[in-house]
Amino acid sequence: MQSNFPRNVTQKLIESHLLQGEMIPGKEIGIHIDQALLQDATGTLVQLELEAMGIDQVKTEVAVQYVDHNLLQTDYKNADDHEFLRTAAARFGLWFSRPGNGVSHPVHMERFGIPGKTMVGSDSHTPAAGSLGMLAIGTGGLDVAAALAGKPYFVKMPLIMGVELKGKLPEWVSAKDVILEMLRRYDVKGGVGKIIEYYGEGLRHLSAMDRHVIANMGAELGATTTVFPSDEETRKFLRSQHREHDWIELKADPGCNYDLQEVIVLDDLVPLIAKPTSPGNVVPVSEVSGKSISQVVIGSSANPGLRDFWIAGAIVADKNIAPEVSFDINPTSRQIIQNMIKNRAFANLIKAGARFHQSGCMGCIGMGQAPASNTISLRTMPRNFPDRSGTKDDQVYLCSPETAAASALTGKITDPRKLESLYGMAYPQFKAAARDLIKDELLIKPAEDAKVALKKGPNIKSLPDFDAMTNKFNVPVLLKMGDNISTDEILKAGAEVLPYRSNIPAISKYAYTVIDETFYDRALQAKEQFGGHVVVAGDNYAQGSSREHAALAPKYLGQIAVLAKSYARIAWQNLVNFGIIPLEFTNPDDYERIEKGYMITAVNLREHIHNSSTFDIGLSDGKDLITISVKHSLSDRQIAILLKGGIINTYKEELTI
Amino acid sequence: MQSNFPRNVTQKLIESHLLQGEMIPGKEIGIHIDQALLQDATGTLVQLELEAMGIDQVKTEVAVQYVDHNLLQTDYKNADDHEFLRTAAARFGLWFSRPGNGVSHPVHMERFGIPGKTMVGSDSHTPAAGSLGMLAIGTGGLDVAAALAGKPYFVKMPLIMGVELKGKLPEWVSAKDVILEMLRRYDVKGGVGKIIEYYGEGLRHLSAMDRHVIANMGAELGATTTVFPSDEETRKFLRSQHREHDWIELKADPGCNYDLQEVIVLDDLVPLIAKPTSPGNVVPVSEVSGKSISQVVIGSSANPGLRDFWIAGAIVADKNIAPEVSFDINPTSRQIIQNMIKNRAFANLIKAGARFHQSGCMGCIGMGQAPASNTISLRTMPRNFPDRSGTKDDQVYLCSPETAAASALTGKITDPRKLESLYGMAYPQFKAAARDLIKDELLIKPAEDAKVALKKGPNIKSLPDFDAMTNKFNVPVLLKMGDNISTDEILKAGAEVLPYRSNIPAISKYAYTVIDETFYDRALQAKEQFGGHVVVAGDNYAQGSSREHAALAPKYLGQIAVLAKSYARIAWQNLVNFGIIPLEFTNPDDYERIEKGYMITAVNLREHIHNSSTFDIGLSDGKDLITISVKHSLSDRQIAILLKGGIINTYKEELTI
Repeated sequence: MQSNFPRNVTQKLIESHLLQGEMIPGKEIGIHIDQALLQDATGTLVQLELEAMGIDQVKTEVAVQYVDHNLLQTDYKNADDHEFLRTAAARFGLWFSRPGNGVSHPVHMERFGIPGKTMVGSDSHTPAAGSLGMLAIGTGGLDVAAALAGKPYFVKMPLIMGVELKGKLPEWVSAKDVILEMLRRYDVKGGVGKIIEYYGEGLRHLSAMDRHVIANMGAELGATTTVFPSDEETRKFLRSQHREHDWIELKADPGCNYDLQEVIVLDDLVPLIAKPTSPGNVVPVSEVSGKSISQVVIGSSANPGLRDFWIAGAIVADKNIAPEVSFDINPTSRQIIQNMIKNRAFANLIKAGARFHQSGCMGCIGMGQAPASNTISLRTMPRNFPDRSGTKDDQVYLCSPETAAASALTGKITDPRKLESLYGMAYPQFKAAARDLIKDELLIKPAEDAKVALKKGPNIKSLPDFDAMTNKFNVPVLLKMGDNISTDEILKAGAEVLPYRSNIPAISKYAYTVIDETFYDRALQAKEQFGGHVVVAGDNYAQGSSREHAALAPKYLGQIAVLAKSYARIAWQNLVNFGIIPLEFTNPDDYERIEKGYMITAVNLREHIHNSSTFDIGLSDGKDLITISVKHSLSDRQIAILLKGGIINTYKEELTI
Repeated sequence: MQSNFPRNVTQKLIESHLLQGEMIPGKEIGIHIDQALLQDATGTLVQLELEAMGIDQVKTEVAVQYVDHNLLQTDYKNADDHEFLRTAAARFGLWFSRPGNGVSHPVHMERFGIPGKTMVGSDSHTPAAGSLGMLAIGTGGLDVAAALAGKPYFVKMPLIMGVELKGKLPEWVSAKDVILEMLRRYDVKGGVGKIIEYYGEGLRHLSAMDRHVIANMGAELGATTTVFPSDEETRKFLRSQHREHDWIELKADPGCNYDLQEVIVLDDLVPLIAKPTSPGNVVPVSEVSGKSISQVVIGSSANPGLRDFWIAGAIVADKNIAPEVSFDINPTSRQIIQNMIKNRAFANLIKAGARFHQSGCMGCIGMGQAPASNTISLRTMPRNFPDRSGTKDDQVYLCSPETAAASALTGKITDPRKLESLYGMAYPQFKAAARDLIKDELLIKPAEDAKVALKKGPNIKSLPDFDAMTNKFNVPVLLKMGDNISTDEILKAGAEVLPYRSNIPAISKYAYTVIDETFYDRALQAKEQFGGHVVVAGDNYAQGSSREHAALAPKYLGQIAVLAKSYARIAWQNLVNFGIIPLEFTNPDDYERIEKGYMITAVNLREHIHNSSTFDIGLSDGKDLITISVKHSLSDRQIAILLKGGIINTYKEELTI
């Protein structure tokens, strides 16, 4: 790589934080992380991992534990989690954003985001901070824990796609329609392996919070992250947040290159809508207008800004929501509510018939306001995967606040441009205040000393200790699975299981239940009798969601190794991170020679793993003993982790030294 | 009874509505009902009962279907109920208060309550309307359905307790402390069989909404209802609601008598608090001050007024809630929120750290905001029975908004009078607006015609049809139970079961599961094989909660009769209402001669029930057949209902004629 070539914003961000590797697409790089974002649904496990690693104080410049997902408190579990997170934040030196302060992404942007910084977050919408000129990546809990411990973040250098924005959005069309246009063009996998960087003169008319809408929902493209420059709009936003001192300019160099190129002419956009059941299922609103609806929800991290609520309020002001519509408002943060009171958006919405909910993620993660059966729900949220709302076979459409508010009035999906003829309405013009109301005292600062005890309710258990890798085993094959087993089959999600995310002994009872309900009992017995077990699988083992519990729970139940034809990438890394050996068949035909209940034997295992990528193991059906050849494709770094029994043991050891 | 004696307010209300009987304590009276209040948790069944009765249009002057209990919508069921209730209200001619409009009792008082009127409501806090000089009684769903169908409401004439209020409340002491004082003196059974009527010069300083607090929580005394006069304060309230035209004066005649007498000197009261786990467990706040708390909740129908939120806002204005406290605000109605925005209460609370929730019952019925394990929650709500909050072994204290707000600031239970020394705070003085903001368009008027189809989601089933009473049976004894079996054992409540309240086939699966998990299967088998079953019990069968499902579900499963030593009063009526014969042993010793699995035979049953209060039935253990004598204590009216197969069949027949 040349040292003087003109850089785009992404390259500047990476280069200034590069600790290992080179910026060559596909090659692994390690970057320094300045900030970390945690939310409650994943954060409890991250905090337990910090505890298990023996971390004293986090090393990032800024780390914030938010509480925004599990706010309903239908029993003690969520409230107990909040207490745990409050004490854990104090213990390890994170900021704590109290329940009710708001959704992590907009609050972080408003109060903590700084152009030029890097961030990891244990939430897939972490890229929203790219709106301020940050490099912000959503990732698994252990990666966040590692960053908090001062470790680099490792990722394969993505391709950089430059999206040039030209012109200006027409009236009744807003930022949501820009990202919906990207989803219309690229669908939900079009961003995989890419960082999307927006540039061009069209940016002049997009506020920092408009950019948040676009960066946030870039996650739906599958992109690694989204990046915007830091310019006068960024400065204006930071000034409104009384933080102009945090502003720096960060722009692409003239003549810089992008790996891929795209252009959007803003003037040509129309109100768009994503039909059920994918954010990529985008059509013009006019194509589905007239359909009756039962619910409209405005809010979430995908339309979190004061403007978004204000414009909805301005549209419904002095009118009444259609009688058959539940008009649910999901205000993003306590700060936003204060400013909504000031600019009358709150009163306008309430008076027209809104139901206001506490600030948090709410229906966006199925935590309340599930729609009625066989009815259409219109939402400004980022996702409409099947059943995500909490209602089976739901019909969720995603759209802008303009489209949502217009439809709430009419009771039917309505192109907001029709409001001109229906109500004689001119497009309301939002005037941002130069300085918004701010009050930070409810964000609890990191404690000065770390003498705070972790407060754990009965459902919160410390992570179990795990031993270093064994040198030999003789254990039964508890399952023989086919190809493409997903993490949902290994450890399912849903309302029954999720509350146990901070209780590994309890959640382990659900391991593999989708495949075999007797697994838990058999695993405990094998652990007692033989010291553990192995499972056998076909190709692409553990595809799907990146949930760490799909490795952690089997590990807790004594899983020593998986023997598969091949692995999904993230799950393979998760197995290593939690100290389970991901073995592959040297000869895939040997898969046929193994049945459930056979015994597998390995000796000199540590030496084998360390010295060679191929070795023999013993296989017995109870009568005959044969040997088969197995292999692994671990890097030296991963071998070291595995020998120590996983990444927690590794960091614990490093930190003790 | 003399015609010219001086009447108290209660007597005037009853006399003006008396259709049957005399106002002699203990004698049954039948009174005309002007208004009806329904909430969603019980209202779905009432609406299904109207459907089953074949009602066309309700006959009361005003009937309102509120939606305030089940607002969280974690799946489709609650949202489906809301849709059903909206269409049912239109179908049968009730007002419909949309989800988010607010808690039934304060909204009804604000927008519908009229001095001098009578009301029944399918909610135990219906007596709150007594604050306006109404006679308002909470009762079972079928009684409400009957009133809606134009039938009288039957009740035994209660004793009338006159409570004279003298003087004026000190600063930092408010209406909640008055009713807590009553609970301190009389505990939770002290009001049973009584109507409590407040009078005296102390009333001058209690606003209509203050009286609501007292009348509402009179339910905790076990009182039939609470009554206040309609005076200048009532007029002022109705004027603030733009409804002065609905005001009439309604005062006790000079020299009137009360069956019982009590006096409260308001000047002597101090801030009071009910300790766990009973509203009757009242002590001065000072006795428990200093205890650490994790949660404060302000709102509910027991402190619903604008003043209650305003004073909390004034106390916390420009301060911060203690970091370890979740400060949950449960605004009563959309109208209250509008006025809270106007008088700055909303902004003061949000800014200090409040979490705002949609208008509804919320944590008062365990629908959200359950507290963390082993922590204290302070609430302005009416009840703190064990686990009602949703958290097992909870520690809920009940107090005034003043005490709650003071404690939220300090993080410990705090006597609000301490705020003077802690913060140099003077007692904030609330100035009621002459006219509050009002907007009624979101209360949906009864439909002009009744052509609306009922919209039933998959969990909403019409009531099953029931046959007229059989003339003979030969059926097995499916259960032999002991004394004091509660309705909780017959059909349990809780989060698992409640969502099925409008689905009799589904909820029937839980019948008697607490006693015998095989009951459901055995009952279906007995219905198939023998056409039904009986159960046998000891004394006081079906005590506790008045839930109708404890009769309806067994009926659905084929229960023909119960044979018990004795019955709890409400449950006995419920059995008759749903067509189950409540038989008693003529000789209680015969209880010992029956075992589970024995067969019971009756012939000429209709004739026996009609003509005689004692008759013989056959009893067989499979070998020998003996006869035992049974009896009943049914009135002629009840016999007629029973012969027709229950009250729904009775009304259906009357309405068809």
